[in-house]
Amino acid sequence: MADKSLRIGVVLSGCGVYDGAEIHEAVCTLLAIARVGAVAVCYAPDIPQAHVVNHLTGQETGESRNVLVESARIARGKITALSEFSAGDVDALIFPGGFGAAKNLSDFAFKGADCSVNPQVVAAVAAMRAAGKPIGALCIAPAILAKILGQQGVELTVGNDPGTVAALEAMGAVHRTTTHGEIVVDPGLKVVTSPCYMLDATLAQIAKGAENTVKALVDLAK
Amino acid sequence: MADKSLRIGVVLSGCGVYDGAEIHEAVCTLLAIARVGAVAVCYAPDIPQAHVVNHLTGQETGESRNVLVESARIARGKITALSEFSAGDVDALIFPGGFGAAKNLSDFAFKGADCSVNPQVVAAVAAMRAAGKPIGALCIAPAILAKILGQQGVELTVGNDPGTVAALEAMGAVHRTTTHGEIVVDPGLKVVTSPCYMLDATLAQIAKGAENTVKALVDLAK
Repeated sequence: MADKSLRIGVVLSGCGVYDGAEIHEAVCTLLAIARVGAVAVCYAPDIPQAHVVNHLTGQETGESRNVLVESARIARGKITALSEFSAGDVDALIFPGGFGAAKNLSDFAFKGADCSVNPQVVAAVAAMRAAGKPIGALCIAPAILAKILGQQGVELTVGNDPGTVAALEAMGAVHRTTTHGEIVVDPGLKVVTSPCYMLDATLAQIAKGAENTVKALVDLAK
Repeated sequence: MADKSLRIGVVLSGCGVYDGAEIHEAVCTLLAIARVGAVAVCYAPDIPQAHVVNHLTGQETGESRNVLVESARIARGKITALSEFSAGDVDALIFPGGFGAAKNLSDFAFKGADCSVNPQVVAAVAAMRAAGKPIGALCIAPAILAKILGQQGVELTVGNDPGTVAALEAMGAVHRTTTHGEIVVDPGLKVVTSPCYMLDATLAQIAKGAENTVKALVDLAK
């Protein structure tokens, strides 16, 4: 059981795998945080979603939704705008996956290795690095860390998808192939990653990946 | 480990605690189903939500959203319209909570004991009863079962909220007070209920309640 006062920031990117945060990964992350006895502190940028996808048909709808407002569904209303993030408020930070990480927090889904990352996300990661505090990322979210920390040769995983791996390597990241529930730890940069739904996974496997990632973050945060 | 072929239907009611299915309860239910080695089969009615609530402010928005389409976010697109439900397709059925159960699957949130239940929900519950198959409900969702099975004196729990308990008893249900993670089993009607977020709970406690409910359903389904 970790210290009750350990606080782990969770950066959400909407609510739904195709246009926001992947809900299973987000909830399993929050559950893993609760189970190690830490406190989850949710954040999301107060920006429009890149688009809205009908999750039944996979088709884009004409709607406009806000990343912070939709993320609040996962957080049950207890969420803070990412613009207010301070590394002093948390002991670790984690990015669950879902297309929101690649469409709202960055534009990796549209531009690959030529992507840019939301400035508030860049600032949060930089602040955590400056404070020597650990950062985790699940599924496709490691692409964000590849963009920000690629020049420092960050070591990470998105599973085994060749196209995605090539894009991450093009940004300077060192990729490690992994399977269900496995994590890659970069001890120097204090980065922990796990493939989750970048693999064809069961929800039990997602929970294991989130749990292993959170436990590694707690170890690095001590 | 249950038989791999055991299938548990999960009736969703949108995506978000204030106007749809409670996301943590829904995901913890799906996780519990995966962990007992069963298969989750998601359903939701293809109807408009009663309304849309901004989960950051708690205010109603002017938007219109569809229960099946929003539920598909939790189900990652793998979901069937409740109109197609057949009791022959599942071994057990479970209703996670959230205001969606009391606003979309029924109007209990607006009318209390005088509520009515969506006809497709009534038909699904009746079909499960006729087939002698178990039904579970979390959080406020037992209100639906109180309305449908109250005249048969269904025994259930929504935790300990006096106003809600009185409404369920007014519909004929026999209420048992419970705390975190506890379940109430009505062995005659094969109904299993747990209070989940009807109590001020942690996510770890929600997961325990969902797990205990799913395990009891599996036992009753054997």
